[in-house]
Amino acid sequence: MTYCCGILVRDGLVLIADTRTNAGLDNIATFRKLHVFEKPGERVLMLATAGNLSVTQGVVNFLNEGFENPETGEIESAMTAQTMLQAAHLVGRAVRRSLQEASPSGEQASGVSFDVSLLLGGQIGGGAPRLFMIYTAGNAIECTPDTNYLQIGEHKYGKPILDRAVNYESDLYDALKIGLISMDSTIRSNLSVGLPIDIALLRRGDMKLEVSTRIDANDEYFRDLRESWSKALRAAHMAIPAPPYRGREP
Amino acid sequence: MTYCCGILVRDGLVLIADTRTNAGLDNIATFRKLHVFEKPGERVLMLATAGNLSVTQGVVNFLNEGFENPETGEIESAMTAQTMLQAAHLVGRAVRRSLQEASPSGEQASGVSFDVSLLLGGQIGGGAPRLFMIYTAGNAIECTPDTNYLQIGEHKYGKPILDRAVNYESDLYDALKIGLISMDSTIRSNLSVGLPIDIALLRRGDMKLEVSTRIDANDEYFRDLRESWSKALRAAHMAIPAPPYRGREP
Repeated sequence: MTYCCGILVRDGLVLIADTRTNAGLDNIATFRKLHVFEKPGERVLMLATAGNLSVTQGVVNFLNEGFENPETGEIESAMTAQTMLQAAHLVGRAVRRSLQEASPSGEQASGVSFDVSLLLGGQIGGGAPRLFMIYTAGNAIECTPDTNYLQIGEHKYGKPILDRAVNYESDLYDALKIGLISMDSTIRSNLSVGLPIDIALLRRGDMKLEVSTRIDANDEYFRDLRESWSKALRAAHMAIPAPPYRGREP
Repeated sequence: MTYCCGILVRDGLVLIADTRTNAGLDNIATFRKLHVFEKPGERVLMLATAGNLSVTQGVVNFLNEGFENPETGEIESAMTAQTMLQAAHLVGRAVRRSLQEASPSGEQASGVSFDVSLLLGGQIGGGAPRLFMIYTAGNAIECTPDTNYLQIGEHKYGKPILDRAVNYESDLYDALKIGLISMDSTIRSNLSVGLPIDIALLRRGDMKLEVSTRIDANDEYFRDLRESWSKALRAAHMAIPAPPYRGREP
């Protein structure tokens, strides 16, 4: 399993991804799911991946090495897209192409799911930072200020805090913090989501990442965040008065 | 969809259930999912249901009206079980019987799922309060102090708070409060879980319910709890310092 979330705020965007993959519960490994394609001064693309690893690795390879656009005959890669929208369509084509290689007949082989979902965030040239989710079919949706985050993978445990604590006007580093709390809730509840976590933070107008790092089990800030958050939750419910219900009605 | 949770603490147990049912998103209704079978002084049984409504209504009817135990030939109902374990087995037989009526051939008719899951909590005679989960196959697991809650239906959104804030030594009314917070998180994130909520609270050693009531949208305590909890969550994350990550590593 996987948990990744992308948060879009006025000042930029944040992507967070865990690194645990599993084929069954007894086959667990660590793979990077947050990939960066960057040419400082010109473009920053961040791609977070969930689902079938052979398909998503194929997508990353196509984006790195380039592949032919059947309509124009040109070779396109993450470095050639002129806008974020073009980049989202490119990722969609890479998904379809990778899927075809992984499963040429389009069939599910022996119950294996080839489904994937991806988050693509970034900024190209003078454009605004944009965040997209791309599905197995290669189609995409875009994040907007109304709901300013997108999630892939095991999204439920970490959703309540996002719904309550983050919006388009949030500070960029607050968005990162809340994303980390959301990740912590997911890691605690689903064994197949695990440390280390990769994070990337892009400020609006910048054409390079402001933060790109990996958080592991020894990271002091994340350890403190987990502990503070647990304490705060306990304190929060203790501050609410006891339920007044007694007896039976109606 | 549905969300119900049962919490077992040293002093007793609490069951909480929403009331929303849906067949598709465009066919929403209100049905009671928390059923009480009680003979004050002798027994209290609480049953929370999730899944196919025709099957779960069948189960409740069998428990109310009684049905034959094929091994003994006797008519058994919620009022005849001598222990909580017998009651859990009885519910399992009622599930199998109801399933047979709803789907005699054991087939899935036109994609409809006949799956159900149920929580059975209560106390009979001098026995301890016990809490069981019963599956579609009629088999059951029992809640123990190690993990002192059980959930059915849409369980993920409401799990983080239970994992962090409740344990077997929690106060009985704290358990109710945390169950309501867990329900609130679920209602906010899944449209198919909705008010009103039915709650029941049983104190260890009592042979009648201490609380049995319904919470609707006008309930002042629940409204305050939702608001306080949202505020507390916002305050909790604001008290955590901003992430210190800058630049790129490694």
